Amino acid sequence: MTDKRRAAFLFDLDGTLVDSVYQHVLAWHEALEAEGIELSIWRIHRKIGMSGGLFTNMLLRETGIAIDAPRIEHLRRLHAAAYNRRSAKIQPLPGARERRVLETLGVDFDRVPVVTRDQVKYAKPDPDLFLAAAERLGENIESALVVGDSVWDMLAARRARALGIGLLSGGYGMEELERAGAYRVYDDPADLLKHIDEVGVRR
Amino acid sequence: MTDKRRAAFLFDLDGTLVDSVYQHVLAWHEALEAEGIELSIWRIHRKIGMSGGLFTNMLLRETGIAIDAPRIEHLRRLHAAAYNRRSAKIQPLPGARERRVLETLGVDFDRVPVVTRDQVKYAKPDPDLFLAAAERLGENIESALVVGDSVWDMLAARRARALGIGLLSGGYGMEELERAGAYRVYDDPADLLKHIDEVGVRR
Repeated sequence: MTDKRRAAFLFDLDGTLVDSVYQHVLAWHEALEAEGIELSIWRIHRKIGMSGGLFTNMLLRETGIAIDAPRIEHLRRLHAAAYNRRSAKIQPLPGARERRVLETLGVDFDRVPVVTRDQVKYAKPDPDLFLAAAERLGENIESALVVGDSVWDMLAARRARALGIGLLSGGYGMEELERAGAYRVYDDPADLLKHIDEVGVRR
Repeated sequence: MTDKRRAAFLFDLDGTLVDSVYQHVLAWHEALEAEGIELSIWRIHRKIGMSGGLFTNMLLRETGIAIDAPRIEHLRRLHAAAYNRRSAKIQPLPGARERRVLETLGVDFDRVPVVTRDQVKYAKPDPDLFLAAAERLGENIESALVVGDSVWDMLAARRARALGIGLLSGGYGMEELERAGAYRVYDDPADLLKHIDEVGVRR
């Protein structure tokens, strides 16, 4: 079924294909504030992309506030509403729309699967989302390239034994992504496509 | 006039005392978009804190769009309006309000000068703002500690021959600030106060 010579690209959507991270950050800040939870914005930024469960544990540890299940659900709904109010302004990142380039690389858009949070047991930094994506593509996860913008993506990539590629488009620094295991770091999808040979992809 | 044994703290306001960086970022994004200029949000984040003139040069280089003086002025007004709409939500960072702690360190609040952009010739990363602050305090800039959240603050600190201290509250990574010359990096003012002995300040 799998061919180790093939290298499938698995993209984290938010922050690597869509310029949505900062809106997520401020939407979470708004939701937490509405619940009377004060948390500095950069701390929220550094947690974007991790699972809701871990985020809640972090809240408890960093603010001392224990959050029960109904309140988590309420926060989640507040965040969704705050994000939706901002979402009209959200743009794809440079290179994310360049179908022609991706087609040149042999990506068949009609069979690109999108795996969502509800389809797996654990969110990142567990590897479930990327494992499911590789499975749906019929590709070997160990020869896949996981493209992400946060340390959580890089951690998930390592746990899956995939090759992590970092993009700066989520607002993390290059050094943070490299320390978390990124093999290479690029600006955005356009920059990755420009340097695609560096990650060993044959055209 | 100056005593080299004294170490004055010079704070960049936005991002080290006030949790305002992300609102500035999205306000700039909104202003640029209104003018039809597409720029990824993380690229704006990485430029926050640099002077308007350098920001304009960067825009030209990164987007190919040359911007004349009236358009700069128009962008500046769009940004101010977008920022003001968001500013009601802006909070001081943890530790920034702890007068008691600062008073313990001998800071006299009635004589803390605030230097604004219009009072100096060049904004950061030129050292003018910090030089003016040290002068107003009657302190030697070379024994001052410049506390900032961006690489532009650290560059200005180096150009002024002051000691740069980085805070993560502006959303930069620790490694980026260290590479730019930060002697130490802390989370926010509260964390700096907790570790104040590490930067050589005697209580």
